[in-house]
Amino acid sequence: MDMWLREGQIEDAVMTYKVKETLVRKKTKYQDLCIVDTYALGRMLTLDGIVQTTIKDEYVYHEMITHIPLFTHKNPKKVLVVGGGDGGTVREILKHPSVEKVVLCEIDEDVIKECKKFLPEISCGLSDPKCEIFIGDGIKYVHEHKNEFDVIIVDSTDPFGAAEGLFGGSFYKEISECLTQDGIFIAQTETPFYLPDTVKRVYDDAKAVFPITKLFMAGIPTYPSGFWSFTIGSKKYNPETADLSNTIDIDTKYYTKQLHKACFVLPKFIEDILE
Amino acid sequence: MDMWLREGQIEDAVMTYKVKETLVRKKTKYQDLCIVDTYALGRMLTLDGIVQTTIKDEYVYHEMITHIPLFTHKNPKKVLVVGGGDGGTVREILKHPSVEKVVLCEIDEDVIKECKKFLPEISCGLSDPKCEIFIGDGIKYVHEHKNEFDVIIVDSTDPFGAAEGLFGGSFYKEISECLTQDGIFIAQTETPFYLPDTVKRVYDDAKAVFPITKLFMAGIPTYPSGFWSFTIGSKKYNPETADLSNTIDIDTKYYTKQLHKACFVLPKFIEDILE
Repeated sequence: MDMWLREGQIEDAVMTYKVKETLVRKKTKYQDLCIVDTYALGRMLTLDGIVQTTIKDEYVYHEMITHIPLFTHKNPKKVLVVGGGDGGTVREILKHPSVEKVVLCEIDEDVIKECKKFLPEISCGLSDPKCEIFIGDGIKYVHEHKNEFDVIIVDSTDPFGAAEGLFGGSFYKEISECLTQDGIFIAQTETPFYLPDTVKRVYDDAKAVFPITKLFMAGIPTYPSGFWSFTIGSKKYNPETADLSNTIDIDTKYYTKQLHKACFVLPKFIEDILE
Repeated sequence: MDMWLREGQIEDAVMTYKVKETLVRKKTKYQDLCIVDTYALGRMLTLDGIVQTTIKDEYVYHEMITHIPLFTHKNPKKVLVVGGGDGGTVREILKHPSVEKVVLCEIDEDVIKECKKFLPEISCGLSDPKCEIFIGDGIKYVHEHKNEFDVIIVDSTDPFGAAEGLFGGSFYKEISECLTQDGIFIAQTETPFYLPDTVKRVYDDAKAVFPITKLFMAGIPTYPSGFWSFTIGSKKYNPETADLSNTIDIDTKYYTKQLHKACFVLPKFIEDILE
């Protein structure tokens, strides 16, 4: 008997993956956590039935959510990741030698624990001495830290249910206060193809708070539609026109300096959504 | 009982769509043709179980395979489409007033017939007086016409089975001879994520024939991985540096003049595949 995993985010258009083996499945304090080994994409983490990351394509998401803001900022020293318990974003942040400290604020300890065990290629940065792990609510953490981080990365699940509070104007205002005066915020912000209203709402909420707000796209095969948006809110630096001539070379599989600019050039239907 | 269509191109990573109604399913002379109405994406054409086009996302493919070569060429008058029986590419070509004649060379008459009936939004251009439909083998047609077309668009199924001969060096040589002296060729060339070897082989085959060969990407939700490649072979004009300052404005949902340049900026892993 073949076992298949059904990806549950978009009703009526469901991705399915043939599963070799279930490595862990448990109800954590917050969600249904599952790590399976699939034939097509290797090991894969799902939370409440939604694919979060896979060995084969995780690099796209983690590189783009990290290197765009970190290379836009001239000298990021302190970075906060809200969510991101799989560790992939921390791994990418640590490629920037200017960074002195990364705080990972993850609400669900079990995500970290299981990813350390079953996804070591992704979670490897979590044991780095520069990385401080804080188990708790991101909203509370951000509220209690002011003017502290150069970059804040909201590496959350989707804006429905548990992570809903991590999207929207009131949280972005807190984020802005938690950032230093030239700080940059970024979040994953869903698929414009299936969820145009969500993309528009989140973009407008960020725009109401940050002087510079930009959306860019990346091709992520395991997220619905395969074409995913990220939204940046910035106090000073424009990511689209960032001077990258003196940035260091880092080892990547998706990000390039040329793509740093090109990813902000949007298809017409996405421009129309944001108008 | 719910009916679901399973998309069969990539083994072990299968997209499924909930189906409202099957509009037609038949064995044609060449393939298994099916048009269904789906909840997520509206009406959808499949050939041998592979999604070819859907009402909701067809514009990405048809705009990008058409406007990139037609705007790169300074004055395209005669255009050949090999395959493309759904008519979407012809519809986009007819938006260019310089075009005097489009020949659609489709091997399977039933594709045209059923798309005219069930996908009129896509097939609408096929009845235009500038469009000449030729039912027959594209390889033979190209062989028998020399120095005739300004642009040739290979709008085919995948390079396995029936359409295999439409990919590769010997056909590209014939294409080159069928083009005028400043002619441009383009083909859909699969997903670099799942089929890197195919993308590399087709690119190298085109490069061996054309002075200028370029690959670009577009986000197409219903094709495997959602991130699709197109390969251009050009005798004179470089699509990446084309002067678009005097091109006319046309009605599009994906293509823009800015994206015409940006889509050629490739993620690192695709650059690596092509090296």
